[in-house]
Amino acid sequence: MRFSSHPVTVLAPATVANVVCGFDVLGFALAEPADELQLRLTEQPGVVITHEDDFGLPTEPARNVAGAALLAMLRAVPEEVGVEISIRKTIRPGSGIGSSAASAAGAVVGLNALLGNRFSQPELVHYAMYGEEVASGARHADNIAPAIYGGVTLIRATLPSPDVVPLDAPPLFVTVVHPQIEIKTADARRILRQEVPLRDAIRQWGNVGGLVAGLLQHDYALIGRSLEDVVVEPVRSILIPGFAEVKDGSRVAGALGGGISGSGPALFMLSQDEATARAVENVMHATYQRLSLDYHTYVTTIHPTGCQVSSEAPAGPESR
Amino acid sequence: MRFSSHPVTVLAPATVANVVCGFDVLGFALAEPADELQLRLTEQPGVVITHEDDFGLPTEPARNVAGAALLAMLRAVPEEVGVEISIRKTIRPGSGIGSSAASAAGAVVGLNALLGNRFSQPELVHYAMYGEEVASGARHADNIAPAIYGGVTLIRATLPSPDVVPLDAPPLFVTVVHPQIEIKTADARRILRQEVPLRDAIRQWGNVGGLVAGLLQHDYALIGRSLEDVVVEPVRSILIPGFAEVKDGSRVAGALGGGISGSGPALFMLSQDEATARAVENVMHATYQRLSLDYHTYVTTIHPTGCQVSSEAPAGPESR
Repeated sequence: MRFSSHPVTVLAPATVANVVCGFDVLGFALAEPADELQLRLTEQPGVVITHEDDFGLPTEPARNVAGAALLAMLRAVPEEVGVEISIRKTIRPGSGIGSSAASAAGAVVGLNALLGNRFSQPELVHYAMYGEEVASGARHADNIAPAIYGGVTLIRATLPSPDVVPLDAPPLFVTVVHPQIEIKTADARRILRQEVPLRDAIRQWGNVGGLVAGLLQHDYALIGRSLEDVVVEPVRSILIPGFAEVKDGSRVAGALGGGISGSGPALFMLSQDEATARAVENVMHATYQRLSLDYHTYVTTIHPTGCQVSSEAPAGPESR
Repeated sequence: MRFSSHPVTVLAPATVANVVCGFDVLGFALAEPADELQLRLTEQPGVVITHEDDFGLPTEPARNVAGAALLAMLRAVPEEVGVEISIRKTIRPGSGIGSSAASAAGAVVGLNALLGNRFSQPELVHYAMYGEEVASGARHADNIAPAIYGGVTLIRATLPSPDVVPLDAPPLFVTVVHPQIEIKTADARRILRQEVPLRDAIRQWGNVGGLVAGLLQHDYALIGRSLEDVVVEPVRSILIPGFAEVKDGSRVAGALGGGISGSGPALFMLSQDEATARAVENVMHATYQRLSLDYHTYVTTIHPTGCQVSSEAPAGPESR
């Protein structure tokens, strides 16, 4: 971190989007991992990006998700001002837990702090979506919204402007597994059928209604029954080795349910308590060891807050 | 009413199903009108139906919605027993406010009372759906469930068994208008497209999530924003003269929103207070007077309870 004059540091959380039946509309923030972004204002207009990680992401602002979001936001700022941003990503791009959303959301939350918090949360979602467009070709908000609001969020609609509904969910443990393959969001979107049988669509929106009700009523059994996706999962799960084994085994181990995180390849399972979440992790271990596929797994929780800003320089890496 | 030995009387409420975005999954009970059913057990197995109204409905049990529901329920009863039922409908068949559901729900609730309330509410929904199948060819539950549970209900799924989620909604006033034309449920289902663009399906389930959240959080503004149907209304509304004028005018008058009740032709609009609901009624008056179409309109509320059973003979018609 090389800025000296009043920088801010943002911890931007990983997020799970496309929560089973809630394709494109439901997402939640994870307590870990998080990206760390440092930003400061400059007199020179424009955006200057430095990456302090090894993912080889572009630093040209218009091609960088944080850059595209910052450029969109700066266009709404009357002052002649620019921003320097240094990004240390720990959320691997293409893993399916909102890596691009963390960069975009962290960037706009950081710039907003530098500008005296003049923008509302819906406005921050709006600007961050320009970053998602760079990453996936679609201006979707279901990772962005929980990265900014925290917790579980419903994105009722994105047009004419993002309509984000925070949902007061009960405690949930999340077991995540990343099989070490890469799926690009744009590719995962391309294989979707563009027409859905009405019968399946009805089943899906019944489940979305049930999941929202289950979360708000803290009804774990209803949450579990509603975690069913008859539209997207049958198509996308074929891209992910071990999917059915993890899903079925996790249910047997006591998980409420789960599915593909974002567009994959990460999978997530929700559990009511930590012991179950650990049992689910053992199912994941067994599955990917049997398949001789490299993988990475962990147990975490839903993070109640989104991007967190501090104006102190961060402590050493052990505190993150 | 001609039974003497311990009959029960059931008031079975009208209901609104297909609540805008919640096609096939959301419904609510109306405080009025209601059908009146009187039932008593007989030693002679089978179902005997009398209609004390002028709608010319079939009295052959297998072809009558109440009869089909009762026959399905009796098959689950070990005792050799039959039922006589006398039905006085005030909910006009084919009007779109759950006339068949009232008959079927009222019948199974009445028989259950005669049998010592041995069946659960989900089981009652299951049996009443046999009646809906006679009426419309589809075993749907979005009128049946609110007729039995009262209030607003989500039917998350009907298979493998009905999963009904009662939603604790805030006070809502309902303005209903019946243009005097008849639309058969089976016909209204036939004109639906059997495939939905994925983009529209996503918009719809975002709205279903928003509507459920708005109801549970008592957030009237969110309810209003979520009352949008991009899948069914664009097709079915062409069957109903004056639809756009009523809908747009009601919004201008302050309604939260609304749409086609069931498969029409009745339309309903939801309002936060009675004065607005009355202003909406004036919009309906103006629309159908201009179109020189016979119509019938009224303002009511969402009924908190479903079918109500009494074992007293009912008082005169003025009490209904």
